[in-house]
Amino acid sequence: MVKKSFPLSQVYRLLEPGPVVLVTTSRKGRANIMTMSWHMMIEFDPPLVGCVISDRNYTFSILKATKECVINIPTVELAAKVVGCGNTSGRSVDKFKAFRLTPTPAARVKAPLIKECYANLECKVVDARMAAQYCLFILEVRKAWIDPSKKDPRTMHHRGKGVFMVAGKTIQLPSKMK
Amino acid sequence: MVKKSFPLSQVYRLLEPGPVVLVTTSRKGRANIMTMSWHMMIEFDPPLVGCVISDRNYTFSILKATKECVINIPTVELAAKVVGCGNTSGRSVDKFKAFRLTPTPAARVKAPLIKECYANLECKVVDARMAAQYCLFILEVRKAWIDPSKKDPRTMHHRGKGVFMVAGKTIQLPSKMK
Repeated sequence: MVKKSFPLSQVYRLLEPGPVVLVTTSRKGRANIMTMSWHMMIEFDPPLVGCVISDRNYTFSILKATKECVINIPTVELAAKVVGCGNTSGRSVDKFKAFRLTPTPAARVKAPLIKECYANLECKVVDARMAAQYCLFILEVRKAWIDPSKKDPRTMHHRGKGVFMVAGKTIQLPSKMK
Repeated sequence: MVKKSFPLSQVYRLLEPGPVVLVTTSRKGRANIMTMSWHMMIEFDPPLVGCVISDRNYTFSILKATKECVINIPTVELAAKVVGCGNTSGRSVDKFKAFRLTPTPAARVKAPLIKECYANLECKVVDARMAAQYCLFILEVRKAWIDPSKKDPRTMHHRGKGVFMVAGKTIQLPSKMK
């Protein structure tokens, strides 16, 4: 799989459907992974993403300190690893090793990309004012990568308690919507 | 279809997968519908939902003024109506009439439920401080309804420009995640 640069103006098309994502961070040379479902688009271009990361999660403090992360989008082949990352804490587990995921260098941030994910979005925290009250961060995507062979990615969508809806068929309707 | 009350603590399981929703509002006895994909869960219980509604949309000003709405979740049978609501403005169109959708009274808000949607979430705006900068509203779900016959709802997930992923199969993995 060779990833290609993906236009920032099109990033909303990857996140708007609501896939479970893996958020990678790095502090003092130590990388971590977190499973996340609470995110939404806020602006098209430059792409802004809102996300909620509980302050009980290890990633919360890393994100506050380093102000950068990568949003990696997995497909259903990675389901066991996605759930594994959601059930463990980076405080005690090196998740890249434990779940045999491959970190590769990002272009704009220190947090690594996850090679096995079909898309990777390099992000900076641009607004953390709502972090104290809502654990809500606003991220700006600065660089995006995609595996262009994945036309209809079989993303996972969490329905709670380890139940996932897997992306089914694609339909297209005449629309003026962006 | 007879709707049943749905526990507020379980509402995240409906929205976390990222479905397209129809937001209903009402002002001066006139109801409106807006198609929306930019939303996320913020808290489990009481359920808080973040959503972004452009200030170019008619719904933005109604929501600011009335501070209430209903989030209605459609399935793919309603695809043409969902796109129709997204391509028209309530400033000039009565969308309930135009798209043959049925308004039914809500319990806690003046905005109507859409009968044809399999789930309905009655919401109050609890924080509009981010509306000016990000068009971001924080809603609290006060009452939820569901059609209990829809076990694996075939929700629609917008991939931009009228392209939708339709909910496919359901899988379950052993998980400690909520």
